[in-house]
Amino acid sequence: MPVGTQGSVKAALHRDVADSGAEIILGNTYHLFLRPGDELIARRGGLHRFIGWDRPLLTDSGGFQVFSLADRRVITEEGAEFQSHLDGARHQFTPERTVDIQARLGSDIAMVFDECLAYPATREAAAESMRRSARWAARCRARLQMLRDHDGQAQFGIIQGGVFADLRRESVDATVDVGFEGYAIGGLSVGEPIEVMYSVVEETAARLPADRPRYLMGAGTPEDLVECVGRGIDMFDCVLPTRSARNGQLFTSQGRVNIKNARYAEDDGPLDPACGCYTCTRHSRAYLRHLHLAGEMTAGALNTLHNLTFYLDTMKRIREAIKLGIFDSFRQEFLRSVSRLSHDS
Amino acid sequence: MPVGTQGSVKAALHRDVADSGAEIILGNTYHLFLRPGDELIARRGGLHRFIGWDRPLLTDSGGFQVFSLADRRVITEEGAEFQSHLDGARHQFTPERTVDIQARLGSDIAMVFDECLAYPATREAAAESMRRSARWAARCRARLQMLRDHDGQAQFGIIQGGVFADLRRESVDATVDVGFEGYAIGGLSVGEPIEVMYSVVEETAARLPADRPRYLMGAGTPEDLVECVGRGIDMFDCVLPTRSARNGQLFTSQGRVNIKNARYAEDDGPLDPACGCYTCTRHSRAYLRHLHLAGEMTAGALNTLHNLTFYLDTMKRIREAIKLGIFDSFRQEFLRSVSRLSHDS
Repeated sequence: MPVGTQGSVKAALHRDVADSGAEIILGNTYHLFLRPGDELIARRGGLHRFIGWDRPLLTDSGGFQVFSLADRRVITEEGAEFQSHLDGARHQFTPERTVDIQARLGSDIAMVFDECLAYPATREAAAESMRRSARWAARCRARLQMLRDHDGQAQFGIIQGGVFADLRRESVDATVDVGFEGYAIGGLSVGEPIEVMYSVVEETAARLPADRPRYLMGAGTPEDLVECVGRGIDMFDCVLPTRSARNGQLFTSQGRVNIKNARYAEDDGPLDPACGCYTCTRHSRAYLRHLHLAGEMTAGALNTLHNLTFYLDTMKRIREAIKLGIFDSFRQEFLRSVSRLSHDS
Repeated sequence: MPVGTQGSVKAALHRDVADSGAEIILGNTYHLFLRPGDELIARRGGLHRFIGWDRPLLTDSGGFQVFSLADRRVITEEGAEFQSHLDGARHQFTPERTVDIQARLGSDIAMVFDECLAYPATREAAAESMRRSARWAARCRARLQMLRDHDGQAQFGIIQGGVFADLRRESVDATVDVGFEGYAIGGLSVGEPIEVMYSVVEETAARLPADRPRYLMGAGTPEDLVECVGRGIDMFDCVLPTRSARNGQLFTSQGRVNIKNARYAEDDGPLDPACGCYTCTRHSRAYLRHLHLAGEMTAGALNTLHNLTFYLDTMKRIREAIKLGIFDSFRQEFLRSVSRLSHDS
């Protein structure tokens, strides 16, 4: 899922996001709550109509952003009090309130409000936080069931527990016990070693219901997509393709390309010869480098278009490989090719 | 002509520029000479191939940018010495050199190197400057005729002379005497009162050959397009539609819209109900306002798409009105409608 924080995938028109193959995008409840406000969006007919996006939308609960505010938030059993990064105004998010806000936004998939622990955390802190998240998940589910206007809105629970296998198991049991339309794994991709992340994903995904979508939050690299699908994940969101694009970091079938690199100054070839996106079929690396160095907004737009296409093509190729029963060989070949020429990373 | 200073119309992909109806865009020789360099562009096969734009291109001569450098340039009969705004490096532009650079860029229309006087200027300064520009125009034409690789490249002369009617006449005579494929009126839209600009345009255009394109450089507002076509102008370039778009200033069939205005916070209507562009057919004023206030790059992209479409639609409507023999009534109706509701200007 491309990330459309404030109701727009950065540097990409909706048409281009759809053309890249995106079937669903993510909106951030924290940002949309602060600006332009969930009530204003509800008066516009909900987030789909407000932003003019007619495919599915997932909204996070705002938990991750609130916990990232560090010294500008206080967490209690009731919820979180925080100060807006925009104007310092004080607000409160409770599990119930984030359900209400997401119901007003009218996303297709809403996320429960959870506590996102920083890495590293002690076992004790991870346990306490995970259990609070589980209590909050139950409150979110109860609230959703109370609301009359949530028709059609799915709600996903979030598994926490840090890097501790037994805590993850306890979180899975508690969350599945509440019962959701899908399950996410949270609290990863926050600085832990990659093998730890893969291991937690593998053990956790294996215990989640096979008939519900499994969503790994906040990951990751193209390699992470392949590795984590191999461990049972179905859905991802990450700012990496879009943020990297604006910084001139591009993902290709031949590895990473840092378009600022002088080696591309006179390179008339396409960014990725294997890619069929607008950028790769129309422009050269030399031109993309020039636009980036010249600070042109179109550099960000063209790069974003490509990175989104590369990510969504990767997911498409994964799905095809699974259908054909050749996922293992696809995985090996993919990892070899994207790492082979990562000369710029 | 939308302005594509550094080989890209700011905030717009080429596809969107073409969709807006643009038949030709402008590149700035000064900027492209400095970065990425005309020789690098020539090695890429010229500006069309380098930037991936297959419709016509016009390049200016760099004169206007060099003269805008104020205390970082020295003008002599030979040409202009200046310091790059990027790194302070010293360079020299002579009439011959700007012809050579534009030949390497391979634009379809090249402009002669002229001196752009600041407004206001004394009659004496305007006369001296105009006569130097006329001598430079002759040198540019001689240089172009010497070059073997200019096949197909048209060259336009530029009329100077400030706001002085007799100097403008003298400039027309000298420039037409050299002989060019088209003629531009320079040195306007630099701060003079609008009636003065219209008057100089009217008197100057009337004396230019009827069978050659007449191009008013650096203008203007939508009203200027209509008023100056009415005075004999065929071509325009201006950063106004694109720069204004990025600042949230939009041109519509109902007048100016400053999208930041609070009155649009809950306005679900299209930016311009009479416009068929992507922005107007897909998004509301409320969403455009939100994107602009949130600092999203897509605000600039969507606004640019609309403003370009509005400008190019205006030119298209002018052409149709002329063909139908109803230009005068079109002009009156247009000026009435765009000024009627200019509540935000």
